[in-house]
Amino acid sequence: MTLRVGVIGGGQLARMMIAPAVELGIELRVLAEDEGMSAQLAATAIGDYRDLETVRAFARDVDVVTFDHEHVPQQVLRALAADGVAVHPGPDALQFAQDKLVMRARLAELGIPQPEWAAVRDVDELQRFLDEHGGRAVVKTPRGGYDGKGVRVVRAGVEAADWFAGLDDGDALLVEELVSFVRELAQQVARRPSGQMVAYPVVETVQRDGVCAEVIAPAPAAPERLSQMAEGIGRMIADGLGVTGMLAVELFETDDERILVNELAMRPHNSGHWSQDGAVTGQFEQHLRAVADLPLGDPSPRAPWSVMVNILGGPAAGTLEERFAVAMSEHPTAKIHTYGKAPRPGRKVGHVNVAGDDLDDVVYVARAAAVHFD
Amino acid sequence: MTLRVGVIGGGQLARMMIAPAVELGIELRVLAEDEGMSAQLAATAIGDYRDLETVRAFARDVDVVTFDHEHVPQQVLRALAADGVAVHPGPDALQFAQDKLVMRARLAELGIPQPEWAAVRDVDELQRFLDEHGGRAVVKTPRGGYDGKGVRVVRAGVEAADWFAGLDDGDALLVEELVSFVRELAQQVARRPSGQMVAYPVVETVQRDGVCAEVIAPAPAAPERLSQMAEGIGRMIADGLGVTGMLAVELFETDDERILVNELAMRPHNSGHWSQDGAVTGQFEQHLRAVADLPLGDPSPRAPWSVMVNILGGPAAGTLEERFAVAMSEHPTAKIHTYGKAPRPGRKVGHVNVAGDDLDDVVYVARAAAVHFD
Repeated sequence: MTLRVGVIGGGQLARMMIAPAVELGIELRVLAEDEGMSAQLAATAIGDYRDLETVRAFARDVDVVTFDHEHVPQQVLRALAADGVAVHPGPDALQFAQDKLVMRARLAELGIPQPEWAAVRDVDELQRFLDEHGGRAVVKTPRGGYDGKGVRVVRAGVEAADWFAGLDDGDALLVEELVSFVRELAQQVARRPSGQMVAYPVVETVQRDGVCAEVIAPAPAAPERLSQMAEGIGRMIADGLGVTGMLAVELFETDDERILVNELAMRPHNSGHWSQDGAVTGQFEQHLRAVADLPLGDPSPRAPWSVMVNILGGPAAGTLEERFAVAMSEHPTAKIHTYGKAPRPGRKVGHVNVAGDDLDDVVYVARAAAVHFD
Repeated sequence: MTLRVGVIGGGQLARMMIAPAVELGIELRVLAEDEGMSAQLAATAIGDYRDLETVRAFARDVDVVTFDHEHVPQQVLRALAADGVAVHPGPDALQFAQDKLVMRARLAELGIPQPEWAAVRDVDELQRFLDEHGGRAVVKTPRGGYDGKGVRVVRAGVEAADWFAGLDDGDALLVEELVSFVRELAQQVARRPSGQMVAYPVVETVQRDGVCAEVIAPAPAAPERLSQMAEGIGRMIADGLGVTGMLAVELFETDDERILVNELAMRPHNSGHWSQDGAVTGQFEQHLRAVADLPLGDPSPRAPWSVMVNILGGPAAGTLEERFAVAMSEHPTAKIHTYGKAPRPGRKVGHVNVAGDDLDDVVYVARAAAVHFD
């Protein structure tokens, strides 16, 4: 029987699973939010992922359920699991990606290095944390944030008064020390239900306006000790949280040579798009292998350097495809990936990957190719 | 507007265009012969490619028509072209891939090195050719042969009596000298309607029972002179025959250091499957770029050596997918590509690509991974 992998969510991450699924002979089935989503080609159902019966009906025709995003409610996930559906990552793991307070508490238990943090219930508690941490801190809504949304740097408790006012009884915000970092890194690990793990090289990620703009793989000038620490943290988290599929750990590298966990994602991640063209096994193929409990592929880089540059916003006029001719003509080594999305300021509508021997060249070509789409 | 590329034929070549089409944001539409073909996921129509109205209706909704095979009749192709449809490769080029006698005559005009050949109308003419060429020769039906079918080695004219009896009035068979070759090579070139061309490195192909079994890229121990000759022949043919899209030229390397053209294919070709994982731009992406008249991608190898091993026949019991676990587990660097076809003795049902620095290792891993599917 052909293996059927069901993906909840029809965004670009589901879209980019289509190519490896076709080659591996896996039947990809997507529950999309709407018509015309990025993963339209593989969409077999359209519906609300928060509705248990919709998700249950979708899950009936697949061998394993996985995700394009982490927003499927716990009660839906747990009902599926209770039905006997293979769900990867499962609800126990996903709760740590869905709630940053739960994640912080669990990482603390595991002894994973992370910023100083606290759960704060009101302006006074936040002010107390600020007073103890140099007068500046990052406040985060524990749930629903992405790409810089739900994150605010504050200097006074009252600056988060609106968020506190919106909290349900008993809920709290997460506050974290403002880490003085020299750069941001990301570590990806794939883990099968059976426990097999492979780690990708740690990469450097460059954010602009809270959104990932560029990734360099492996992270330049990373001493062996740093790479090993990052890999160790990735493996400890994947194992300690019971992650199945791809795990991305966003990290701060501090000016005193520590690395601290910033965020987690339990799915293919923007920091791993370089691997489509730069690693023996790309993260989308690896995710499919991992959730289907197939042996994992080699995560080794194929070239000394790979660079990914996001296409943000897209062209003011015309379509991405109309820009192809120029970008392709000037940069024949650039690999262009599009998401089938309408351009909108700040929206990720595609990315460019370039791999090669010389880092400066690779960065130059990737940026130069991507700029044609602005 | 999203670019729509229509592929006539739903086989594995159409299937392997799906992955690059998704990434490039090209809408691939396939006219399949039947339900459940290899390219099922992209099938938008089912029908007979020999029927003009079927093909016309299909062509109406695409920007360019291309092919999974070379069997669409000339009258259908010419009617499409007369309708103003962009057809790549076009009928003028495709006739040379459809009729080996027409091809031989044209290559002779272009001065391309090829085996001695003749058009023979009856047993006597064939016998005369045999008498002049050492008593052995290869007889081919000019049309419809593939994977060793329609090809016969003969020592006497009467050995082709059945084929002559089946000829229509005025038709002939092709007879070629039996070339004493040391190995077989293949040269791929991509050419755009605008004339831009790129050449892949010449590769060595290993046939078993008339079917491609293994490809090594680039061809080992190929002196610079040989590579340049092969590339030159590829470019001359692509240009001289007006090919658009991918062209594969199958070559004999003789024991007296010549290379002679054996066969042509005007589409992605088995000899180029290595490029999916071994070249910066794989042949399926390149074909899409070429037929859509987009600038061509870099055809350079990503690794010193790439090896492709076909999966022929497939497992006697069970499915390819059920064999994955063992092959994947033992060979994490092997890239497995499946065609979604039921196993049948001698049928190509998938292939394995491996790339790396050491040729012996790469060959070993590719063969060892593929053998799990026998």
